[in-house]
Amino acid sequence: MADQERSYVHLFSEFEKVRSRVGGERDDVRGLLGGKGANLAEMTGLGIPVPPGFTVSTEACNAFLEAGETFPEGMWEEVLEAIGEVERDVGRRFGDPQNPLLVSCRSGARFSMPGMMDTVLNIGLNDAVVEGMVRLTGDPRFVYDLYRRLVQMFGNVVLGVPDELFEAVISRAKREADVVEDSELSADDWRAVTMRFRETVQSYAGAGFPEDPFEQLRQATEAVFRSWNGKRAIDYRNAAGIAHDLGTAVNIQTMVFGNMGDDCATGVSMSRNASNGEPELEGDFLVNAQGEDVVAGIRETQPLGDLAQAMPEMHAELKAAATALEAHYRNMQDMEFTVERGKLWVLQTRDGKRTAQAEVRIAVDMAGEGLISREEAVRRVKPDQVDFFLHPQLDREAREASQPIASGLNVSPGAAVGVVAFDADTAERWAEEGREVIMVRPETKPDDVHGMLAAKGIVTLKGGRTSHAALVARQFGKPAVVGASDMVLDMDERELKVGEIVVAEGEWLSIDGTNGHVYEGKLVTAVPDLKNPYLLKILEWADEFRRLDVRANADYPRDAQRARDYGAAGIGLCRTEHMFFETTRLPIVQRMILAKSASERREAISELLPMQREDFAGLFRAMNGLPVVIRLLDPPLHEFLPNYDELIQDLADLKVRLQHHSTMSEIDQALEDIRGKQDFLERVETLRESNPMLGTRGVRLGILIPELTRMQVRAIFEAACQVSREGLEVEPEVMIPLTHHVRELEVQQTALEEEAREVMQEQNLEIPYRFGTMIEIPRAALTAGELAERAQFFSFGTNDLTQTTCGISRDDAESGFLMHYIRNDILPRNPFATIDEGGVGRLIQIAVEDGRAVRPDIGLGICGEHGGDPESIALCHRLGLDYVSCSPFRVPIARLAAAQAALDS
Amino acid sequence: MADQERSYVHLFSEFEKVRSRVGGERDDVRGLLGGKGANLAEMTGLGIPVPPGFTVSTEACNAFLEAGETFPEGMWEEVLEAIGEVERDVGRRFGDPQNPLLVSCRSGARFSMPGMMDTVLNIGLNDAVVEGMVRLTGDPRFVYDLYRRLVQMFGNVVLGVPDELFEAVISRAKREADVVEDSELSADDWRAVTMRFRETVQSYAGAGFPEDPFEQLRQATEAVFRSWNGKRAIDYRNAAGIAHDLGTAVNIQTMVFGNMGDDCATGVSMSRNASNGEPELEGDFLVNAQGEDVVAGIRETQPLGDLAQAMPEMHAELKAAATALEAHYRNMQDMEFTVERGKLWVLQTRDGKRTAQAEVRIAVDMAGEGLISREEAVRRVKPDQVDFFLHPQLDREAREASQPIASGLNVSPGAAVGVVAFDADTAERWAEEGREVIMVRPETKPDDVHGMLAAKGIVTLKGGRTSHAALVARQFGKPAVVGASDMVLDMDERELKVGEIVVAEGEWLSIDGTNGHVYEGKLVTAVPDLKNPYLLKILEWADEFRRLDVRANADYPRDAQRARDYGAAGIGLCRTEHMFFETTRLPIVQRMILAKSASERREAISELLPMQREDFAGLFRAMNGLPVVIRLLDPPLHEFLPNYDELIQDLADLKVRLQHHSTMSEIDQALEDIRGKQDFLERVETLRESNPMLGTRGVRLGILIPELTRMQVRAIFEAACQVSREGLEVEPEVMIPLTHHVRELEVQQTALEEEAREVMQEQNLEIPYRFGTMIEIPRAALTAGELAERAQFFSFGTNDLTQTTCGISRDDAESGFLMHYIRNDILPRNPFATIDEGGVGRLIQIAVEDGRAVRPDIGLGICGEHGGDPESIALCHRLGLDYVSCSPFRVPIARLAAAQAALDS
Repeated sequence: MADQERSYVHLFSEFEKVRSRVGGERDDVRGLLGGKGANLAEMTGLGIPVPPGFTVSTEACNAFLEAGETFPEGMWEEVLEAIGEVERDVGRRFGDPQNPLLVSCRSGARFSMPGMMDTVLNIGLNDAVVEGMVRLTGDPRFVYDLYRRLVQMFGNVVLGVPDELFEAVISRAKREADVVEDSELSADDWRAVTMRFRETVQSYAGAGFPEDPFEQLRQATEAVFRSWNGKRAIDYRNAAGIAHDLGTAVNIQTMVFGNMGDDCATGVSMSRNASNGEPELEGDFLVNAQGEDVVAGIRETQPLGDLAQAMPEMHAELKAAATALEAHYRNMQDMEFTVERGKLWVLQTRDGKRTAQAEVRIAVDMAGEGLISREEAVRRVKPDQVDFFLHPQLDREAREASQPIASGLNVSPGAAVGVVAFDADTAERWAEEGREVIMVRPETKPDDVHGMLAAKGIVTLKGGRTSHAALVARQFGKPAVVGASDMVLDMDERELKVGEIVVAEGEWLSIDGTNGHVYEGKLVTAVPDLKNPYLLKILEWADEFRRLDVRANADYPRDAQRARDYGAAGIGLCRTEHMFFETTRLPIVQRMILAKSASERREAISELLPMQREDFAGLFRAMNGLPVVIRLLDPPLHEFLPNYDELIQDLADLKVRLQHHSTMSEIDQALEDIRGKQDFLERVETLRESNPMLGTRGVRLGILIPELTRMQVRAIFEAACQVSREGLEVEPEVMIPLTHHVRELEVQQTALEEEAREVMQEQNLEIPYRFGTMIEIPRAALTAGELAERAQFFSFGTNDLTQTTCGISRDDAESGFLMHYIRNDILPRNPFATIDEGGVGRLIQIAVEDGRAVRPDIGLGICGEHGGDPESIALCHRLGLDYVSCSPFRVPIARLAAAQAALDS
Repeated sequence: MADQERSYVHLFSEFEKVRSRVGGERDDVRGLLGGKGANLAEMTGLGIPVPPGFTVSTEACNAFLEAGETFPEGMWEEVLEAIGEVERDVGRRFGDPQNPLLVSCRSGARFSMPGMMDTVLNIGLNDAVVEGMVRLTGDPRFVYDLYRRLVQMFGNVVLGVPDELFEAVISRAKREADVVEDSELSADDWRAVTMRFRETVQSYAGAGFPEDPFEQLRQATEAVFRSWNGKRAIDYRNAAGIAHDLGTAVNIQTMVFGNMGDDCATGVSMSRNASNGEPELEGDFLVNAQGEDVVAGIRETQPLGDLAQAMPEMHAELKAAATALEAHYRNMQDMEFTVERGKLWVLQTRDGKRTAQAEVRIAVDMAGEGLISREEAVRRVKPDQVDFFLHPQLDREAREASQPIASGLNVSPGAAVGVVAFDADTAERWAEEGREVIMVRPETKPDDVHGMLAAKGIVTLKGGRTSHAALVARQFGKPAVVGASDMVLDMDERELKVGEIVVAEGEWLSIDGTNGHVYEGKLVTAVPDLKNPYLLKILEWADEFRRLDVRANADYPRDAQRARDYGAAGIGLCRTEHMFFETTRLPIVQRMILAKSASERREAISELLPMQREDFAGLFRAMNGLPVVIRLLDPPLHEFLPNYDELIQDLADLKVRLQHHSTMSEIDQALEDIRGKQDFLERVETLRESNPMLGTRGVRLGILIPELTRMQVRAIFEAACQVSREGLEVEPEVMIPLTHHVRELEVQQTALEEEAREVMQEQNLEIPYRFGTMIEIPRAALTAGELAERAQFFSFGTNDLTQTTCGISRDDAESGFLMHYIRNDILPRNPFATIDEGGVGRLIQIAVEDGRAVRPDIGLGICGEHGGDPESIALCHRLGLDYVSCSPFRVPIARLAAAQAALDS
């Protein structure tokens, strides 16, 4: 029967036909065949040695699920036809004891969901076929091992029999045979095990293991379809943001065996190093083994390099296949392969998961090799991956002073420090309580993913570079050490032991994922400078493509210097209040606030002037030639005073203590203390506000105490003159916070510009400068046209703007209803993490349009947390801002995100 | 010389010429000639007997002030020519001792500013003319009295000599003559006084009184021009909102004398009663007196009715003039007149100031008389004037139980209760401190206006119905009693005395401006129902013109009934939390909040259900047939708990007290109290928020505790079914507060609609209902299109929307920077009183447009304080809302304001 008449089933050899059927796009092929099926078909088309087979499409799966788990009409007949094609291709027959074809049945969705859905291998075996195969191979042990695996997987996947029951049978068999390892069991043992498996299945599931190979195949296919809606799969999709209506395809493929002798092998190979991106084949393999053994991390694998010695031809063929696949997919490939009696088969390939470091290096290398363009290289690196270069590392001194208690594979870089939790639920619970957690497990399974996500770092005792733990850790950027086999986990005592050392659950552990070490206790971590040459190259390219400038929020010269090192084009926000909080200054600030006369206040303010001047001079020196936005004093004054509740408590305590004094002088002293405290309390009380976020701060303060902001402006311009005389270039931009009405600018900005001009006249120097305002109150955005008459620049303070636009107090929300909203999917995302486009974004758009209409060259930027968030940066690009400003550590991320935003538009 | 050649000077007889010169608009004539000048000219044109004269225009004044107080070229020559015309008209000559013409020189600006600028009378007298006049009149006493008045006014107005110096001369003269009253002084005494006046002027001002009549006229004209920029005038213009660049005209007019004998009189007349609007001539007059004597309130005047007996012809002529003027100006007139030897002269006319009651009645009467249209009648009444009908009145019982300590004229209605202040500065200072003040003065002068504005009510000991105090009190709607002559004010002791009764400054006084009584102490006041038939007529007409519906904010059946009586078309806001605060319920509410288990909470909630059901049933009954918007629970839960600070204080007190207990059982009890209080404190602490306005309240609460809002919806629909079965019509509109994201409606509204349907199913009844949301957070307005997919109506909660849009906490602002902003003119107005059009108005506009685009029949209204503010109502009309909702007492005001908004557009 001709292929084009089939609706749901597609042979691997029909890639081009399928592609033309879906309209020519490879991505649509993936949608229909799933990632794995599309790969297998595509590989087959590229001449890669792929075991013949076919794919039952996602459409069939969706139809199956919609119809209440019934195959769509005609599907099963198409499967039977395709089996016939495969039989003709490989020259064996399904269910034929004389010359049997065995097949695997695997899921394969559009997006990779490793380990999340089900697989059944060795389909086609039954008692008759087994006997035939024993005759054909002369290796009953091998055949019965295959058979028991089929029954086990079928029982587990199709009929829901817990794996533990099968493991118990094997344990018993080993006890009975008095052996320790599976490999020591004989053919007869395996035959007996298989029989007991079949009994177990019958008694647990109430349904027998089907003798008919076609029935096996039918049920396995159904089970794979059903697994799309399994809990594990749904959880994974929720976490990874994958839609639930895509469905999975089923790939039915000729079995090949890596466990038919020492000329057989099976393994996993990455076309480049997944940890650091070096352009060399890497991976793990096992001689004489089934593929599951490698991935499960149960047997200790050999590094792929060893294959070059053991089977040099196979290694060379694999390398050639990797090169061909990379050239085709223009991406690093993660391949599964099997060598069956000297013949290499590639079982699947997919884009390889990798660390951020590897991502960056591979992108740069591939651009160098001409495989991809520079634009593509820049697009490939996720902005958050840049963050990994800035991830904490263990402090070098602390590391050198400590001895690791264990070592393992360095599968995901960065340092993590936390209390140990020995299961995923505990890890999750503690993380929700705000504790930093290191999850330690013998190995990880898909069931453990929620714990891995919650943990700061992961340690496993078993497993290799391609183990589940390693893959997931890399994907989510969690520092991880796997295969730390020196450690023993005592789950009864809930203790981790290495020799004499015992770490109880809840005690501190530190891990170094970059080097694969585990330390006892809480080591100091340090943030490294980013000097990775590949990253620097990506960022250099990003700078070519982006249109948004990136500035940094920095309050001190050392921050400013770092911002500059990280590529900031200026300072977008210097918060002058941070200077007020320094211990030597706070008493002066408090004196200013509590002053009982104008002259007392003026005196305190003038003491602050030289200090502020020095602060600003330092910033200007560090930013020589670049603009520096200085925000005038913003917070409510009571933030500089002791907490009201504490004062009340203190006062109450003093009164209680009063009763314990006995001498008159003690009592006098105590009474005086009480009076002093009372006075202070009263002053603090007058400054209290019901809603300080909506209270007397920002420009409101500047209007109430104009001497204060005038002093700040004087300090700014005196510093600017001083640094300018040193031969440096200074560009102060004075920013007025919390404006909500143009009259505030008329009053405050006028006074401040006057002060600025006064200083420049005194100093006989002209400094280029700008005055502008923050837009952090909705009314400011809504009347931006009026504000632009005065302000030369706007800086959107999106933290506060989010608070007022959404009516959510940030101080309260993270412990209040907002977290409930996010946990329960009432809000799609936290508006304090990513700019809320519908509300805050619309206000920014209004302000940008109205502001530019009045003053076409108005400066437009954002400062605040969102300035370092890639999605928010993309929004800022679309809204036409000039720059984003973020913490110095986020500057590289923002540079990349800005480039991607430009490339996307 | 022909008139058309004059630029600055216009004869009264030239009204039509001036009118055609300025383009035909009467208002432009007022701009050029000032109100008084235009009136005089217009009256002259109407054939009213006006003493001949002319006006020097405001253009001349402005030119004079701009040129550094120099007459513009040609002006003076024009004055001289006009004097010539007047001489020809009256057949006398200026400065001619044989047949002298005397003139007055008065200010007259575009808008009336009573008493604010200067006047000089009797210009044209000098020693020679005086002698001639004595010969002509044979009445030296009269002539010397005129002369001394000229010297006194000229000295004071033109040369700045304090009036006290002149008064001292008169006092000395009386002492020397051994008489008490001015009228007892002889001709020789007055001559001597005049001579001393001239010496006083010479020695104080260093410049003599000019003998030359033309020099007198020139200097007087200059002085009037200058008085435009006097402090009093500037203050008045600032208070009244009059522009400072209009300038004043000068009216130079033939003097007529009401003090030449008993066939002479002078007085003030209103064409209708200024207190209650009755259509009869009213006013005050004095026989044989100068006009100043009437206005100053120094001599006790006769009511105008007496003129009908004393001079019936004059009274008839005056009545005819009043009728003619009313017909012409289509407004009630306030006229000054003089009878000189049996000849009536009308000296000026202007639209009369009147009480709100008079305004309303006159508008209705004039519409009935066909003088104005109904539209005009509706436009004439200021919405705030309706408020006076709702002004507090003294409680009837309290009034009947008390004896007034004094009585006076009932010149401005309403009751006022406050502490007495005896000068304007004290009154203002105390009012700023938040005290309610009654200002008591011997009489009031323009200098006292700031105190009158600050006071709740005004009492004067002297003065009549048209005295300064009466005029200003009526204009600003302050209850006032004037001429309470039984009282004595001792300014040394700062005490008010009536017989034995002594009221010290700062003690309480109550006044009844409606009846003219003054009471000692703090009487209870009551708000009357409005049943004035004229007001009802105006409101009935207003209802014909308005497009906006007016609803009321009402939480209780009694409020709902009142709202209905006042013409509300429904309830726009029922705040369910008010029901929660009732003392019998609060403990249950607290139990619900502090519940330690879900079942405990459910139990408390179910106890509240029947109570809420009864609340709603009462509302529905009162509003039979009209919609009732019920807002679900809104405030943060901690509002229902004791104050945190107080709890801390209590706890501290308990600990202090602990030390005083001696027996073990006392100590045990005290420790238990402390533990209980501590527990409570901890629960309260978990509910504390840094910014409760931006915290867990409104729909956020409903999402966190869905049982609570479901209970409320159940109560609403059970009540609706119950009342519907009683045969009444019920239209519940359930309102979800504080929505900021459509997902909140998706979650909460879905659950609540389900509950509503459940109740209706149980009850087997269909109730028409709507679900909607408040728009009180900027994001809600910005995403109104999304919200409208769910909400069937929007109600703009402009109080909260103002808070978040402007970033101003209402709880703090009125004691914080906002008051500073308003006092110092940094903000043009209080955004909590009148909707901020630029910010909040723009958000409403966005929401209206986006909401209607999605759901064309969406209901749109506002609730909150702004709903009763006329300017805000006009904005709501322009923005196309369906209704405003305000407090029941503001409903009539809102009905009128809505009509005016419709008429204006």
